[in-house]
Amino acid sequence: MPTYRLDISYDGTSFHGYARQQDIRTVQGVLDAALARIMGPVETTVAGRTDAGVHARQQVVSFTVESSVEVDRLVRSLNGLLPVEVAVLACREVEEGFSSRFSALSRSYRYQILNRPAPDPLRRLTTWHIPQILDLVAMQRAAGAFVGEHDFASLCRKAKGRSTIREVLEVSWTRDDDIVEFRVTATSFCRRMVRSMVGLCVEVGRGRLDAGDMAGILAARDREAAGGAAPPHGLVLWDVVYPDE
Amino acid sequence: MPTYRLDISYDGTSFHGYARQQDIRTVQGVLDAALARIMGPVETTVAGRTDAGVHARQQVVSFTVESSVEVDRLVRSLNGLLPVEVAVLACREVEEGFSSRFSALSRSYRYQILNRPAPDPLRRLTTWHIPQILDLVAMQRAAGAFVGEHDFASLCRKAKGRSTIREVLEVSWTRDDDIVEFRVTATSFCRRMVRSMVGLCVEVGRGRLDAGDMAGILAARDREAAGGAAPPHGLVLWDVVYPDE
Repeated sequence: MPTYRLDISYDGTSFHGYARQQDIRTVQGVLDAALARIMGPVETTVAGRTDAGVHARQQVVSFTVESSVEVDRLVRSLNGLLPVEVAVLACREVEEGFSSRFSALSRSYRYQILNRPAPDPLRRLTTWHIPQILDLVAMQRAAGAFVGEHDFASLCRKAKGRSTIREVLEVSWTRDDDIVEFRVTATSFCRRMVRSMVGLCVEVGRGRLDAGDMAGILAARDREAAGGAAPPHGLVLWDVVYPDE
Repeated sequence: MPTYRLDISYDGTSFHGYARQQDIRTVQGVLDAALARIMGPVETTVAGRTDAGVHARQQVVSFTVESSVEVDRLVRSLNGLLPVEVAVLACREVEEGFSSRFSALSRSYRYQILNRPAPDPLRRLTTWHIPQILDLVAMQRAAGAFVGEHDFASLCRKAKGRSTIREVLEVSWTRDDDIVEFRVTATSFCRRMVRSMVGLCVEVGRGRLDAGDMAGILAARDREAAGGAAPPHGLVLWDVVYPDE
């Protein structure tokens, strides 16, 4: 039974997140439906279940089927069937036992803020507009508190019985002209974690919180401690790394 | 009677071009309506009338009114009234006789092509997707033929009684990863001119036309000679230059 890896990209604007839900338009819903039209029902696994409105530059999906498929043809067929908001970038056969979710070593996200007085219609779907100039030095200091292994319960939406301990490998805040960008890599993330990090750092960048407050917020292990999450549309699942890469 | 200059930006996707038309959604239509709500009917002039689906990073509009307006307040009011696809970047009073159209020294446009096998959902509204790798050296040679003063009748939509002689100041084709970008500056443009240039250069980049064919196509002064124009959604009015800048 061959296993395949699909790399996909999507504009999350009009989807209620990645994970399939009954009667609601989701990325998995349209992808599974397209696969089903080509080869009958297939069970797919995903690297990172993104929330409603969150985008993906590179998301990875895997599935196992009974007989071999011609990968180039599958990519063309899927791109023909999928709505324009979802594209298949590549497909290849992978070793038995590969799981887009469990084989992944790390995931990276990027979050973009448009940091200038005027809004930008051409970037409104992928950036969070903050007119007030942000203090990037303070934000970088704040983000430093997230690096390493921590219980991120304060930054995550509760999921009963699931651990909220995660290991963050890298964070950075950079400015390029009017775009302020957050990059974060972790072995994995819990729900809302990146958007909570961005929300907290922006509070620091606005001078409403101090970079030194982050450690206490983490230690509280209480969702109420972190305040509001940043809006989803500035967030992009950037890439996922596997052992063979 | 003070004259004002408005710098605006828009996502042209859902508009039938800039210029007002009865009962059709246009950028000028929504802008004039917003201005009218604030200060009564105002006659506006624009630097470059973009076609349906074409975007603007910086478009310039001017108007003259009977009494002074507070510019910062006007910007805020307009941005509150305008749909999210249109934003006012700035407003300032200019000297008497200023016209966004007639005072402009030059206009610059940029056209982006996504040049890779897979489509990109996140850039689908602002790039033309061409999977086949384009020959940029040949395209740059082709574009060189457009520089200088020429009769661009072969590249323009006919407008009765209007000259199609224009002066192109600068052209370039560059590649940055999977984006191939055309930049062009001219004193002014006639309708469809940039998209016709892009369409022709892409035919050269695909090997279907030769860079040396451009001179003959220009000389023909016949719309049929140039073939199809590139689709509008890859085109952005980038900026407009005035004497005081």
